[in-house]
Parts: sequence; C-alpha cells; structure tokens
Amino acid sequence: MLKGFLKAHDDLIVKNETNDRVVQYKNTPVEGKVGLVTGGGSGHEPAFLGYVGENMMDAVAVGEVFSSPSAQAFYDAFMAADSGKGVACLFGNYAGDNMNVKMAIRKAKKQGVTVKYVTATDDVASSPKETKEKRHGIAGGVFMWKTAGAKAAMGADLDEVIELAQKAVDNTRSICVGLSPCAIPAVGHPNFDIKEGDMEFGIGHHGEPGINVQKLKPAKEIAKDMAKAVIDDLEPENGAEVAVLLSGLGATPIMELYVLYDEIEAYLKDQGLSIYKVLIGDYVTSLDMNGAALTVMKLDEELKELLDYDAKAPGLK
Amino acid sequence: MLKGFLKAHDDLIVKNETNDRVVQYKNTPVEGKVGLVTGGGSGHEPAFLGYVGENMMDAVAVGEVFSSPSAQAFYDAFMAADSGKGVACLFGNYAGDNMNVKMAIRKAKKQGVTVKYVTATDDVASSPKETKEKRHGIAGGVFMWKTAGAKAAMGADLDEVIELAQKAVDNTRSICVGLSPCAIPAVGHPNFDIKEGDMEFGIGHHGEPGINVQKLKPAKEIAKDMAKAVIDDLEPENGAEVAVLLSGLGATPIMELYVLYDEIEAYLKDQGLSIYKVLIGDYVTSLDMNGAALTVMKLDEELKELLDYDAKAPGLK
Repeated sequence: MLKGFLKAHDDLIVKNETNDRVVQYKNTPVEGKVGLVTGGGSGHEPAFLGYVGENMMDAVAVGEVFSSPSAQAFYDAFMAADSGKGVACLFGNYAGDNMNVKMAIRKAKKQGVTVKYVTATDDVASSPKETKEKRHGIAGGVFMWKTAGAKAAMGADLDEVIELAQKAVDNTRSICVGLSPCAIPAVGHPNFDIKEGDMEFGIGHHGEPGINVQKLKPAKEIAKDMAKAVIDDLEPENGAEVAVLLSGLGATPIMELYVLYDEIEAYLKDQGLSIYKVLIGDYVTSLDMNGAALTVMKLDEELKELLDYDAKAPGLK
Repeated sequence: MLKGFLKAHDDLIVKNETNDRVVQYKNTPVEGKVGLVTGGGSGHEPAFLGYVGENMMDAVAVGEVFSSPSAQAFYDAFMAADSGKGVACLFGNYAGDNMNVKMAIRKAKKQGVTVKYVTATDDVASSPKETKEKRHGIAGGVFMWKTAGAKAAMGADLDEVIELAQKAVDNTRSICVGLSPCAIPAVGHPNFDIKEGDMEFGIGHHGEPGINVQKLKPAKEIAKDMAKAVIDDLEPENGAEVAVLLSGLGATPIMELYVLYDEIEAYLKDQGLSIYKVLIGDYVTSLDMNGAALTVMKLDEELKELLDYDAKAPGLK
C-alpha cells in the first residue's frame, strides 16, 4: 500500500531517507516554518499519510494496520519536519500513539528539537462529556490538520500553532455509525460483528463499541440522530457558522453519503446553524467498514480563513 | 441523493430551473464558450453529476439508478449549456443514452441549437477490438470530460471540441474487475452474483458479464492482468507517456487501490511507458460493488496540457 501511495503521489510526497515508515512532503523541512507531524495506524486511508503536502503535514509516521507507529517512526518524522522552529505533533489520542509520541518527544528533546502536541478528541461516543479529554480522535483530525497546516504556513510560531490546533479540537465533534464490521487483512475476518439489519451507533474507528446497537433505520432518522448527538455535545449558539465533514468509512457508496447529507443539512439549519463549508467523501476510513462519520466544527473568522487557505494533499479534494 | 448533492455543492452547482433531473454549473451558459453536457444513470457517483463545474461540464442529465436520463432531461441540459456556440454531448455509449441523446438532439435542432456528440468506448471487455465502436464507456469518461472541458474553456469551437473528445476516447482504454455484486436500492438485493472467493474479470459498470469468472487472485496478479488487458488493446509505443486512473467501484477501500497501483505501475514501467499523471479514488462507481476499474490514456502534448488545465468539480481531487 505504502509503495503504491508513494508512486501515485511522487509529485508531492517522498519517503523518508532513514525510515521506511515515514513519508514526508517533498520540500520538508520548510525554511522558517513550524514543522507539522501526524501519524497513526494504517487502514484509515486517506488518513493519515494522505494529509501530507503543501501547507499541510510535513511528515507522517505510518503504523501497521490499526496499530500505532513506533516511537522511532514518530521521532524520525519530527526530525524530518523540523526546520529549527520546532514541531507540532497532531494526532488522534489513542493509547499506543500517546505512549510512542511522548517517547519520541523525549528523544527529540535530547537532540535539541522542541516538539509539542495536541490530540484530537472529537468522537463524542468514546467518552462522556465530563471526561472528554479521554475521547478518541476520528474524522475531526482533518479539520485540525487543515487549519493548523494553514496557520503554520502563515508564519505562526510553535505555541501559536499548538494553540490553534487545540482551538480547532475544542470546536469539533464527531460521531460514527457502522452498518458492517471491518476485517484486518492479516486476520482475514472481522474481529467484531454487526448483524445484517443492525447498525452500531457511535462505533469507533477500529470497531470500538459504540453507544448502542440498533435495528437499521431509514437514512433520515440515522442522519438526524448523528447530527443531534454532535450538536447536543458541541452546543453551538444560534446563528453559528459551522463546517461539516461527512466521511464514508471505507465501503460506503458516495450516493449514500449524499442521501444522509440532505437530512443532516436540514437538521443543522433547523438548529439555526449556518453551513459555511461541506466536505463529503472518504476522508478517514476504517478498512472495509460500511458506515459514515459526521464531523461538525464551529467556526470563527480565523478558522474560516484557515480552512479556505490554499493547500495541496492527496486526501483533500 | 440529488438534494444532498445540490446542498453540498451550492458554491459551484445549481439545479436547472425547469427540470429537476438536470444540474448545471452556476455560471452556465458561459458567454462565448461551447456548452458541454453529459448524463447517465445514477449509482455511478461522483459520475456523472460530479463532473459539472468550472472548465468541466456545463450541465448534466441525471437518470434513475442504472437507467438513462430521459430525452427531455438531455434536451433541457442542452438548452441550459448553450451560449450560442453549440453543445458537445459526451456520454457513455449505452443503448438508452444513445436513443435519448439522439431524440434530444433532434428537438434542440428545431430550436436552432446545434448539438454534436462523442461516446466514450473505453471498456475493452465490452466488445472485441474489431467492433470497438460498440464498447461501453466506463471510467475513461473522466479523461474525456476533463480534456474536453479544458478545450472548450480555451476557446475552441464545437467541431474542435468534438474532435478533441474523440481523440481522448481513441487514446483511452479501461477494464474492471468485480469482487462482489451491487444491489439496486429499489430492488434491495443484487441482480447478479459473484460467489465469495471468486472475481469477475472485465465486469461492466452495471454488472454486465465480463470476460470470465475466476478464483480470486493475489493483488499482484489481478493488477498485472488488468494492466495487460488495457495495454494490449491500446498498443502504446515504447516510451509513450500515459495518464492512469484507478477508480474504486463503490465499496473498495482506498488502501486496496494503492496495493493494486503499486503493481500496475510496475507493469506499465516494464512495458516502457512513462506515467505522467495518476488519479486514484472513487471517480466512477457502481453502487456498492467491490472492485476496481483501471483506465489508461495515451498522451501527447495537447492532452497533457488539457489534463493539467485548471478545473473545479466535486468529482475531481
């Protein structure tokens, strides 16, 4: 997969010279710019590696399927991304990633490279609101990477990039619904089950148990339930502007995403929200899972400008 | 689906005022530019409607799932696209589309609007080479639309746009492999079968029978078989430059496309070909079919310039 990815995107992305599991923007390190790094397990394509590019991530650590990249891979990504201005590591708040990122940060510090991090915690189903720092990052990472990528490109220093990434996370919520399980290739069969005719509301990006298992509902009701779960947690004020990301999970036909979006839009408008930007397609997936992830980010003028900022990466449309 | 699509892309695309089954670029008709129209059944998203946009199609006729749009829809699309310079209708060579496009052309002629057409015939599995005018259009349409869109935007007249579209078709070949069937929503179950562990080589975009049914092979062999089928038919000279499009069919994880692409690239290079541009993702799909379509276009300087020309449409990355 990685070999095919590098061949397909050699106009923008190259392999790290010392680590086969690190891919990087061809012009990294970018002189005078804070370096940006992410990483995570494979199986979520185009995440994570598809968000490397111009005014996006500078380097990405690539893990085995559904497994954290090694600390060494994160370290090598940091060293590749650093132009002397420090590095922001923006990842998804899973236990393995957290551990390896922190080890890599200590190692980088010994080399005189400052790395700070922000974890995306957008999945409202993964922990209650009172412990939202424990939540996992899912498709909301895309908004964090896009806005932080722009912020760094505009010349912000490391603390400003970190502050912006945390602001993006604080204003972003997501929820998934799964209609079928996914199979890790090396295992060859799904490691969890969703029965035909059932759906799992709030399922995680690796099949983590969701809020509940329900009988499959019409798209209109699924869309409303997803939008309500996200908005009830985000609590945007009436009249707020939002960005919406509706991602397929890997085996979801694009047609079905548009069917859902029609109803999601209606719900958001009913809540008095104004939709500034919409992304629909496969942005963060879970191997061959059928289902969708809805992400909503509450916007201000700064986030709007950063979302609109020119960028180029294989995962972006 | 159509309502969701229009809501998601209202920055670029609007509904036709008189026909609910026609969508059009918001600035159509574009003064002084040849109008471009396509159309076809739904279920192939982002085709056909996702290729409306800036320097792309001006209007698209939208059919029911796997059914031709009506002659009236094609006619209304022609009238919406015409700025007085005539209209090029670029579609996929299926019986229903052919019939309805021709009826619509006669009707438009009575209104003084000249419409000429080109049909994509890229699917090498759909008819032998001796009768290649009978072949169906599959993912190769994307290259036809992209290059013709640019040609029209650069100021070409109707005959020049038609000539270019035909040149794109003449230099383009595709083949599909299907690993699972697809289910038309109104039917609720697949109307053909691919057994678990089998694959259908050369399957059509609506499940039309392919070249043969085989036991599922490793990706490396599938990729080589696909590339060989396309290149043997296209017969590019040694050293030729090509553009490659590898499209998922609806339920195919992006990871698997990159696995295939690694091997496809190796085969094409072994054949002495130079890969100028690569597109990977869901470009033309078949509802929830699992599988992939490989398209290769042989390039010259004109086609390269047209492929690279700036354009904006929901289906493009």
